[in-house]
Amino acid sequence: MTDSDGVGLVTPKQLHFDAPLELECGTTLRGYDLAYETYGTLNEDGSNAILICHALSGDQHAAGRHRPDDRKPGWWDNCIGPGRPIDTNRYFVVCSNNLGGCGGSTGPTSTMPGTHRPWGPDFPIVTVGDWVRTQARLADALGITKWHAVVGGSLGGMQALDWSIRYPERVARAVVVAAAPRLSAQNIAFNEIARHAIRSDPQFHDGRYLEHDAVPGVGLRLARMLGHITYLSDDGMRARFGRDRRGEQARFNFDVEFEIESYLRYQGESFVNRFDANTYLLMTKALDYFDPAQSTGGDLAQALEPTQARFLVIAFSSDWRFSPERSQEIVQALLARKKRVSYLEIESDFGHDAFLMPIDLYHRALHAFMDVPA
Amino acid sequence: MTDSDGVGLVTPKQLHFDAPLELECGTTLRGYDLAYETYGTLNEDGSNAILICHALSGDQHAAGRHRPDDRKPGWWDNCIGPGRPIDTNRYFVVCSNNLGGCGGSTGPTSTMPGTHRPWGPDFPIVTVGDWVRTQARLADALGITKWHAVVGGSLGGMQALDWSIRYPERVARAVVVAAAPRLSAQNIAFNEIARHAIRSDPQFHDGRYLEHDAVPGVGLRLARMLGHITYLSDDGMRARFGRDRRGEQARFNFDVEFEIESYLRYQGESFVNRFDANTYLLMTKALDYFDPAQSTGGDLAQALEPTQARFLVIAFSSDWRFSPERSQEIVQALLARKKRVSYLEIESDFGHDAFLMPIDLYHRALHAFMDVPA
Repeated sequence: MTDSDGVGLVTPKQLHFDAPLELECGTTLRGYDLAYETYGTLNEDGSNAILICHALSGDQHAAGRHRPDDRKPGWWDNCIGPGRPIDTNRYFVVCSNNLGGCGGSTGPTSTMPGTHRPWGPDFPIVTVGDWVRTQARLADALGITKWHAVVGGSLGGMQALDWSIRYPERVARAVVVAAAPRLSAQNIAFNEIARHAIRSDPQFHDGRYLEHDAVPGVGLRLARMLGHITYLSDDGMRARFGRDRRGEQARFNFDVEFEIESYLRYQGESFVNRFDANTYLLMTKALDYFDPAQSTGGDLAQALEPTQARFLVIAFSSDWRFSPERSQEIVQALLARKKRVSYLEIESDFGHDAFLMPIDLYHRALHAFMDVPA
Repeated sequence: MTDSDGVGLVTPKQLHFDAPLELECGTTLRGYDLAYETYGTLNEDGSNAILICHALSGDQHAAGRHRPDDRKPGWWDNCIGPGRPIDTNRYFVVCSNNLGGCGGSTGPTSTMPGTHRPWGPDFPIVTVGDWVRTQARLADALGITKWHAVVGGSLGGMQALDWSIRYPERVARAVVVAAAPRLSAQNIAFNEIARHAIRSDPQFHDGRYLEHDAVPGVGLRLARMLGHITYLSDDGMRARFGRDRRGEQARFNFDVEFEIESYLRYQGESFVNRFDANTYLLMTKALDYFDPAQSTGGDLAQALEPTQARFLVIAFSSDWRFSPERSQEIVQALLARKKRVSYLEIESDFGHDAFLMPIDLYHRALHAFMDVPA
């Protein structure tokens, strides 16, 4: 395998966990599956493992292809592979599908124990903390005592942050990209509208759409279109779509007319085919609830006091979903407790989406940070 | 009547126009009604008239009350009245409902000539230019040759700008508040999602919902909720709603939980009860199409060359829908042609909504500008 192939073909894996898990919402799951993938080889003392945490609409398929003819590789293939910033020649990389997800881990589309129907809306609301605890159990199962690094962008960055607080002794390095210490009212408002779109779709059937052989496609499509506006920057949209029309003249009807409309509809449509609506609801709620400083009366620095990791915090100039100021809140709180943190603000007009892009400075920073002594 | 009563009780007015109107889309309306209101008294030489242009969801009811027990006065009552910035003791103020609106002017809810059904989706797409031409006919009918001022915020500001270009000799002063010379790709994207929400509502019935005795309430509600996010600033939301919960603890369900959710749902719900979905589609399309520089190859300064008005351009610091930079584009283009323009950027955390707020500096500027020699 050459470097240009990345990690090549990968085989999805799954583990069943028998031990009950009490979720933060109070519900106890008697058992659950986690779907995950690994790339590279774990060394003998289990010290070269890197955990990748996925974002809102991501999953465990971070790199490589499942079949040779897969149209696209995993969502962070440009960053993970032999010779890539997260170098699978040297590191053992793990990525799991969050509990409640729709990529194979137990979630709303799984069969509810003791029934023949899917969990659907009865799947309990999960939190970033719940995910981190399931990831810790996965680490135990894989023989990983301490992560060389926990890495994530957006909602994934929140998991990296939570890891560093919850299991300080298990995280040598934490990379928090394009994240925030908690959502703003505006962030919550966007999530609420996305949820409202899904839940008010007549095909939602109170969340039991699978039992009705239905899909709340209208609502899910709208939610995704809305999400995409917040992922792109105004400047980036201008550069990419401007006010370009698909034809020369104004059409004076409601067909797709501007390129940006066409892009959003395509994004919405393809999302409906690959994502579960109940999972989308759960993921946005996990975002809304994330607030590590809640237990310390709003004092983020105090919340970060237990951390032992070396931090790399990265923000992108045109990200208005989680702006650089939000990353700086994390950096300031870490500095206030004399924690070791590097901060990098990268010029980009990709908006929030930049965290998925192969931006040279970004990738070089990730690569270098993996070698920094912890 | 004391100053504190504002303009008091007002009577809605309506005029029918027989002369055919060829719209920019190519369709000709054989005749149409315009609903309007007036406040104050036109002087003998018709030189004291001010035109107020309404925004996306506004109408002709800008000031006063229709009935003593109306819960709210007109949408700009804080600015229009005896002794108020737009002083009805001195000026004759006119505000008309835009063609295609749902406040009494001919629009999708009106009966289509030669049929017994409403226009619905067959109502032609109207533009800012079409509105300005109907407003000019209204001015003719009222005996107003030249406006003392044409004033508008947001989409209303675009009408003021269009007036100054289309009828240079009829506009002594133009006040363009919280507007933009044309929409950005992001603005169009938000409009597209709003339209998509309405048009994909099963109750939309291809726009013939009135004939089905239905209302596409789900879609219209979502459109309005989304609009509200763009009207408020992130800081303003934080100040007003923060992350406040309606109860102390996380609920771990999908009920309304954060104050911002409650606010948005209320705003969405009340909008469904007062606004027509087809009109909303038309208004957003008029926004998308507005681009006075289109006829001059993108050169806004050249497009503004014919103007003779004295301009006041006002922007609000936290407005991210039409940011101060967008207003500055207008100012720069006017200055490039040595036009008389004053620019005021007002500190506010009300976001785009600031143009409706009784902000002291804003109101003093409007008041003073009405006295400036043209």
